[in-house]
Amino acid sequence: MGEIGAKLEALGLVLPPAIQAPAGIRLPFAPVLVRGNRAFVSGHVPQEASGAIARPLGKLGRELTVEQGYHAAALTALSILGSLRRALGDLDRVQSWLRVFGMVNSAEGFHQQPAVINGFSDLILELYGPERGAHARSAVGMAELPFNIPVEVEAEVEIRA
Amino acid sequence: MGEIGAKLEALGLVLPPAIQAPAGIRLPFAPVLVRGNRAFVSGHVPQEASGAIARPLGKLGRELTVEQGYHAAALTALSILGSLRRALGDLDRVQSWLRVFGMVNSAEGFHQQPAVINGFSDLILELYGPERGAHARSAVGMAELPFNIPVEVEAEVEIRA
Amino acid sequence: MGEIGAKLEALGLVLPPAIQAPAGIRLPFAPVLVRGNRAFVSGHVPQEASGAIARPLGKLGRELTVEQGYHAAALTALSILGSLRRALGDLDRVQSWLRVFGMVNSAEGFHQQPAVINGFSDLILELYGPERGAHARSAVGMAELPFNIPVEVEAEVEIRA
Repeated sequence: MGEIGAKLEALGLVLPPAIQAPAGIRLPFAPVLVRGNRAFVSGHVPQEASGAIARPLGKLGRELTVEQGYHAAALTALSILGSLRRALGDLDRVQSWLRVFGMVNSAEGFHQQPAVINGFSDLILELYGPERGAHARSAVGMAELPFNIPVEVEAEVEIRA
Repeated sequence: MGEIGAKLEALGLVLPPAIQAPAGIRLPFAPVLVRGNRAFVSGHVPQEASGAIARPLGKLGRELTVEQGYHAAALTALSILGSLRRALGDLDRVQSWLRVFGMVNSAEGFHQQPAVINGFSDLILELYGPERGAHARSAVGMAELPFNIPVEVEAEVEIRA
Repeated sequence: MGEIGAKLEALGLVLPPAIQAPAGIRLPFAPVLVRGNRAFVSGHVPQEASGAIARPLGKLGRELTVEQGYHAAALTALSILGSLRRALGDLDRVQSWLRVFGMVNSAEGFHQQPAVINGFSDLILELYGPERGAHARSAVGMAELPFNIPVEVEAEVEIRA
């Protein structure tokens, strides 16, 4: 199972299956693209353990509270970890997190994007520790996101070949 | 001409010349920055074959339909391919697409960013095939874009030295 | 002091200390993440020389003029240079700028993002020159930014090990 898999289990966390594109939507790209010791992670959405897009949908500062946004960001981390496990076989192959780009669907006047994306960063740091889990990050406010999701995260990680 | 150049010609597609900055606008950056086996591609705009910024301008969900946005995304791919050819000499030197960041000028309530950026992904996959053309991707909604363009795409590719 | 440090001094420019998170805000990420010959730079904000978030806050096209945005982008460059100096010891270790992602807090109808982010590019080019300072760039309009800052910049640079 590996170290990270064991930590996930100890925390009672389940990684969702690959996202199913809603009816009529094509997603012609790789969830994770691996080249040499780098893995580029596509923008991911908050998923429930079943694989469905998590609820509630909408904007921070309008339909969602900061607490709900924080939870959505944590679910987005689980979605990315699911894709990384399918791409790499084992989450222990992630040697280091590099870049996290956190996008928050933001209503007019909402400025707490960092508090929302902390739901992502906190979980990655808990799983990978302060060395491997450290990452550069932006947390910014988007006008709209696909499917009206509240949070989307893109990332880059270094992997062991 | 190379393999990709021949495919472009067979499809009747013409790569535009470098963008001309509108009067009074300085663009003090490199369209493509090459270091070792990596090329960083600046945010590009939809261009007509003449080089001018393509019409219509405006937001998806207000001035443009999804079909028009899809077309604008394909024109953005041609703009990037033009810059890559000028920087690399030959589009066959693009060994692999890595990351595509698709930005859609989005009116309130527009959530079909993936269907728009598919105009970019579909053309890259048609030209480079499912191996070299595969890419990690985000497709997200911006509040505004320069010159009121409907789509902007930033990318990273791996190249043969 | 090094070449870049000497240029900063000759220009009368002072690098701010690390940003202090406003009360109640955690920022659990690295301002700069270094791996091998690459440094990933987190989204940075305009800082005054004292370290505080620079004023005025707000959106381009509403609270700020293009000139004020240009100045905010230059202050964001100084903020990033401060973080790079703390991470690398010496700004001369930045061998080449690679990617600059310029985010502008944009009111409805504001389309001059490039003119704003030129405040960043111009300073980097003045300090590092046209070879090492050249960079790929996007300059785009965000719905909202943390703390209501007008400009945020994320970047990637190549460094000497």
